[in-house]
Amino acid sequence: MTPQLPQPSPEAGAAVKAADRAHVFHSWSAQELIDPLAVAGAEGSYFWDYDGNRYLDFTSGLVYTNIGYQHPKVVAAIQEQAARMTTFAPAFALEARSEAARLIAERTPGDLDKIFFTNAGADAVEHAVRMARLHTGRPKVLSAYRSYHGGTQQAINVTGDPRRWASDSGAAGVVHFWAPFLYRSRFYAETEEQECARALEHLETTIVFEGPQTVAAIVLETIPGTAGIMVPPPGYLAGVREICDKYGIVFVLDEVMAGFGRTGEWFAADLFDVTPDLMTFAKGVNSGYVPLGGVAISQRIAETFAKRPYPGGLTYSGHPLACAAAVATIEVMAEEGVVEHAARLGAEVVEPGLRELARRHPSVGEVRGAGMFWALELVKNRETREPLVPYNAAGEANAPMAAFAAAAKAHGLWPFVNMNRTHVVPPCNVSEAELKEGFTALDAALSVADEYTD
Amino acid sequence: MTPQLPQPSPEAGAAVKAADRAHVFHSWSAQELIDPLAVAGAEGSYFWDYDGNRYLDFTSGLVYTNIGYQHPKVVAAIQEQAARMTTFAPAFALEARSEAARLIAERTPGDLDKIFFTNAGADAVEHAVRMARLHTGRPKVLSAYRSYHGGTQQAINVTGDPRRWASDSGAAGVVHFWAPFLYRSRFYAETEEQECARALEHLETTIVFEGPQTVAAIVLETIPGTAGIMVPPPGYLAGVREICDKYGIVFVLDEVMAGFGRTGEWFAADLFDVTPDLMTFAKGVNSGYVPLGGVAISQRIAETFAKRPYPGGLTYSGHPLACAAAVATIEVMAEEGVVEHAARLGAEVVEPGLRELARRHPSVGEVRGAGMFWALELVKNRETREPLVPYNAAGEANAPMAAFAAAAKAHGLWPFVNMNRTHVVPPCNVSEAELKEGFTALDAALSVADEYTD
Repeated sequence: MTPQLPQPSPEAGAAVKAADRAHVFHSWSAQELIDPLAVAGAEGSYFWDYDGNRYLDFTSGLVYTNIGYQHPKVVAAIQEQAARMTTFAPAFALEARSEAARLIAERTPGDLDKIFFTNAGADAVEHAVRMARLHTGRPKVLSAYRSYHGGTQQAINVTGDPRRWASDSGAAGVVHFWAPFLYRSRFYAETEEQECARALEHLETTIVFEGPQTVAAIVLETIPGTAGIMVPPPGYLAGVREICDKYGIVFVLDEVMAGFGRTGEWFAADLFDVTPDLMTFAKGVNSGYVPLGGVAISQRIAETFAKRPYPGGLTYSGHPLACAAAVATIEVMAEEGVVEHAARLGAEVVEPGLRELARRHPSVGEVRGAGMFWALELVKNRETREPLVPYNAAGEANAPMAAFAAAAKAHGLWPFVNMNRTHVVPPCNVSEAELKEGFTALDAALSVADEYTD
Repeated sequence: MTPQLPQPSPEAGAAVKAADRAHVFHSWSAQELIDPLAVAGAEGSYFWDYDGNRYLDFTSGLVYTNIGYQHPKVVAAIQEQAARMTTFAPAFALEARSEAARLIAERTPGDLDKIFFTNAGADAVEHAVRMARLHTGRPKVLSAYRSYHGGTQQAINVTGDPRRWASDSGAAGVVHFWAPFLYRSRFYAETEEQECARALEHLETTIVFEGPQTVAAIVLETIPGTAGIMVPPPGYLAGVREICDKYGIVFVLDEVMAGFGRTGEWFAADLFDVTPDLMTFAKGVNSGYVPLGGVAISQRIAETFAKRPYPGGLTYSGHPLACAAAVATIEVMAEEGVVEHAARLGAEVVEPGLRELARRHPSVGEVRGAGMFWALELVKNRETREPLVPYNAAGEANAPMAAFAAAAKAHGLWPFVNMNRTHVVPPCNVSEAELKEGFTALDAALSVADEYTD
């Protein structure tokens, strides 16, 4: 009944690969220009292919396996829930659904106590934007350049990276602004304080010129993820909160990537002591063991839909198997102190380790991050800060980053690479020894990157 | 570790319900006006609450549990895959992903041999529309009134039922047309032949006036689902195919609800011997045991993205747990002859049974469907065909349908109700005895509906 999965052998890998090439259409790819690695298995912080190569995963998949691969307690919980109730429609009250909502609401900031479950992050953002528009009766949404909010129409329109470009024909009512990022300041700032003040002034001026009464929401990743892990300066998010309150705008924080322990807090919002009106989540909520996302909703916005129907929904909202995986993941994270572990190793091992690498490698322009959420900005020249590859480079123009990635893999490390950056985003329960093994490989790969500096 | 699920008792049900009311925000609902039933378990064609009430499920959840609840072979496959590899990122070749794609491609019509996996139906439609726009370089999409294509921005804009209204501010380039539906003909037709010819003429005229060179895609449910299971007349879909070919328009069939056995064929397109350019699926692909959807892509459109990146993707594309459930579901359906069973019992039991009910109940205006996909159109008056409740009725105006549904539940049947219709959409492997049990309950409930007729 179950597919007879082949044993890890080069032949089995070739069969998997052949069927993939014949029938699987991959995300964000030119289908004939990719060569997907056939993966045979994964456990903890590692995965391996069919040829006996094992990789330390500094990507957590796409920054989502916050408890690593195949955590036995979560696997067991999925198996038990499968035996009990794999699926049931959204209009009913179910134990796994209720319990997941309760455990999430217990951890979300402030009064974000109602949970609308989605399948992933993109539809969480879709629904958050819809809730904000209906709550305010206003059409526009402000979001940041250097952001990613998902691949469906509304989510990609809100996104501020090149993945938006092909799908922008349908954009309506989305306005992009610049968020703070001192290393590449759009505000000619020289200090964090200056960057913060100017970014807030820029945002407020944008709102005034767009017409505050037309703005439904500001959507921000608490710490932007794929766009570069730019930790906002102290006071920025509190300032955005004030601006939202001043103009009656819904404040949406997207914690799809930053939430559930990634930053060394349950939510990145906790680092800044700020409470949004809506908060999106996915990925870490159950380490992606079963697709799940959602929106945590404040009391005030929930009241808008108390007597008036919320015009949105989906078949798998609060899917019991996904919710059971969330319950088990949250319990594992609490029992094993995964969030605290990420904070401690982030501060004691990752940050000093990466700063040491930066000292030794001229290709490293900046190190930034928190918890298990770090970026190395690679540059041709530390003085000019010219990126090691141009914005959205492909093919030959991207050769330096391709060479860096290949070198890391040759040293047994699977790196996260986006434009001119590598992100260090291992599972939040990665061990100190694994981190050090990874830094040794990074050291070698950065030597390759160094060859492309001026 | 696993949540200690309570035993089915009224107290346990009350606790589940209390946590639901405190923390779960439900789809398509006014949160304080709903009273979700707490469900303790489900198996085959039945589910039960915490108070000892058992219901025969004539809804298949939201028309997705095509093999019923808790099929032991699919549960076992999920458990085995969970033990082996619960999750892995989309850029890799994985056995479960490859095998699911291969089994789906084997069954899809024509050359729809590349599978792009999504989390569900809405994002499948989102991506199909994006592919069509990029393939053609044209902006517009035509879709039908009386349709549902999903809850995210692009999918809801394409939708043609009232769920679209609240989210139409973002609509760009979507044009709605009327598809054939003789019982409520928009074309003043008196025969199926006339309805078909006029619907095609209406569609082509709409295209000519919109400008054929601006139309990227026609998106249609092969047989519209929630909108009323209107089986298109012979020749209609072939005619749409011809129109698409004539004007270079991408033909997208949405088989999220109609696919995977629901109509007594693997895909409803097989009933009409038509091959679209893109076909969306979800629900029945793995009976919703794990969230999964996708787009089956023709060779010609796949070639558009052979050397040029497809600008779309998602973290859980081809999720291994979801794909393993699809592999097992498809194998179960093949081994147990579920598709043939649905066709046979649809023709031999459901259709005659429903026609017999229609003969005896004046509230039944029309019976239509195929396989395990049937609608009863309830009317105040068979002559005028006035619906038993107005379009999009709520509250008091919807009392007749509410009374019908309550009567069905009192007789142990959980009915699918939408506007003035009840749909008979049990699992595709429902037994003859279960169908007859359900018809007895329907008989009683229709007597209640009869009270509201003229």
